Order: sequence, then structure tokens, then C-alpha cells
Amino acid sequence: MKAAVGESGELKSSKSKPGMNRGLSILDFILRLAAIVGTLGNAIAMGTTNQTLPFSTQFIRFRAEYNDLPMFTFFVVANAIVTGYLVLSLPLSIFHIVRSRAHGTRVLLVFLGAGMMALLTAGASAAAAIVYLAHKGNSRTNWLSICQQFNSFCERISGSLIGSFAGIVLFMVMIFLLGAALSRRH
Amino acid sequence: MKAAVGESGELKSSKSKPGMNRGLSILDFILRLAAIVGTLGNAIAMGTTNQTLPFSTQFIRFRAEYNDLPMFTFFVVANAIVTGYLVLSLPLSIFHIVRSRAHGTRVLLVFLGAGMMALLTAGASAAAAIVYLAHKGNSRTNWLSICQQFNSFCERISGSLIGSFAGIVLFMVMIFLLGAALSRRH
Repeated sequence: MKAAVGESGELKSSKSKPGMNRGLSILDFILRLAAIVGTLGNAIAMGTTNQTLPFSTQFIRFRAEYNDLPMFTFFVVANAIVTGYLVLSLPLSIFHIVRSRAHGTRVLLVFLGAGMMALLTAGASAAAAIVYLAHKGNSRTNWLSICQQFNSFCERISGSLIGSFAGIVLFMVMIFLLGAALSRRH
Repeated sequence: MKAAVGESGELKSSKSKPGMNRGLSILDFILRLAAIVGTLGNAIAMGTTNQTLPFSTQFIRFRAEYNDLPMFTFFVVANAIVTGYLVLSLPLSIFHIVRSRAHGTRVLLVFLGAGMMALLTAGASAAAAIVYLAHKGNSRTNWLSICQQFNSFCERISGSLIGSFAGIVLFMVMIFLLGAALSRRH
């Protein structure tokens, strides 16, 4: 066990081993940048996806867009919100690099991170359910696959999903790093 | 600020204000029991849902079951796993009531709780996407609503979803209580 880490002990503690916590904070910052690129890319990739088939009847042009299905709209909104949160959390992450013994703000980031991870998971999961149906269809409910017609649309939304699940993994690693930095004070 | 809370100060600190942390731990225990009832109920409600229509052709009986759609199977499995986790975490929760200054095990429960909340969210979200389609259908992809035929099936799965989202809220409160107990040591 380490020495006492109360108000009086903090300075000594931070002087004796600041390097490790600083390293964790720098890694956290880099992961946040990577997650911003990922979630922003997902939102843009899904939001700009559309495909118009090269034939049409007199009244209907066959066209698929992300906002035909509300779950894809939710996916885009969830990714946009998470991107916004990540950008706003960058200053706190820099603050942790400078002050490697900060405690309260790290607890805050763990909570917000868990909430944002749940939001990202909900968006990715709802979109994944629809992508599965689009690829496979379902015979019992008579919902037919649409990927035969809209194959480039389907490829694009599938790729966007993979990026979103990578974002969820990044969030898990970030929460773990924050927890490691928190528990090192004890 | 409180007195130093290092190894030497712990005993004094736990003697001077054990009541609040103990109260939080008891509340955490009660919430866990409520969440077990909720998630187990969801898994059973979704798992036993089926409806056979009162007419049939020569070859086909019209019947809807939860495992017609893989997302509902995932929902049942996710709820079952979370129920198992909650049962296994009960001893730790009791341990926190007895030893109200435990730290490492609370950090562990925050991480596992965040992961389980993500799993529950993924299951509920995928099932919600399908329930939405079952109720409303989607004209662009030509997926028709099935709730006109299978209305009692639809009511049952919708109710099960509400229970699952209540479970997610319970998890958020539990993580918050653990965090409050953790931050009180500083």
C-alpha cells in the first residue's frame, strides 16, 4: 500500500509517480481523437448514403436513402451526439495530462463515457437489426431482402456499422484507462 | 475537505461516517433485486410469447414465435446473461453493506455494470427496431406490418421492451450510486 493520499499527501504522491498517470492520459487523448474520426466518419458515411436505380416507372423512381428507415436516422443522430461529446471532452482530457492527479473530473468522464457508450450501442444495434433484415430478409414475416436491388447502398451501411462497433470498443478502452488512472491513487 | 484517508486513516474515517455509504449500499442491493426481477421477467415474457392464428391452410399453420426473428433471440439471451450477472453480483453488494469503505470491488462493479448496461441496451434496441417495423411496417422497403394479424404477440413483445428500458434506467442509477460511494472517500 502507498502512503496516505489525503489533501496533504497529494503533492508528494504526484511528485513521486506522475509519469504513469500522464502516459494513461495521453493515451486517452489519442483514443478520443481516433474515436472522433470514427464516429464523425460513420455519421457522414450513413448520412450521405443513397442509391438511385438506373430504371424507373412513370411515377416512381427507385431510390434508397438513409432516412427511409427511422433506425438509420437514429444511428446518424447518435453518432453525431457522441462526436459532439468527444470534442467537448477533449479539453478535460488535456487537463488530465497537465494535472495527472485530478480525481473528480475523471469520475465525471467515466459516467458520461458509460452513457455515451450506451447511446452509441443503441444506435449501432438498431441499425444492425435493419441491415440484417436488408441482407437476409425474413420469411416468417414476409419481409424480403432489399440488398439484391440496392447492393451498393447495403455495402455502405454495413461498412458504417463496422466503424460504429469499433467506436464502442474504443469507448470501453477509454473507460478502462480512466479507471486505471483512478485506482492508481489508492 | 476531509482528513487523510490513507491506510492509517481508513479505520477512523469509516468509524466517523459509515452510515451514508452503508445506506447507498443497501439501496444498491434493493435496486439489484428489482433489476433481477425485471430482466428475468423480460426474458421469460419474450421467450414464452407465441401466437397461433385460429385458421390455417392445408400446409401452413400461421404461428408467430420469438425465435422467428434472431433479434428477439438476442434480446432473450442478453436479458438472461444480465440476470445471471446480477445474481452473481449480489454477494459483492452484501459485502459492500458490511464493509462500507471497500474500493476496488466498487470500481470492478462500475466496469462490469457499464458493460452489462451496454449489452442490455443492444438487446433492447435491436428488438425495438423490429417491434417498430412490426407495428408500422415500411413502405419504401415493402415490409408490411404484421401486428394486424398477430396483435396479442405484438402487445406482449412491446410490453417486454418497456421492462427492458426500465432495467437500463436501474443500471444507470446503480452505477451512479457506486460512483457516489466511491467519491465520498475523497
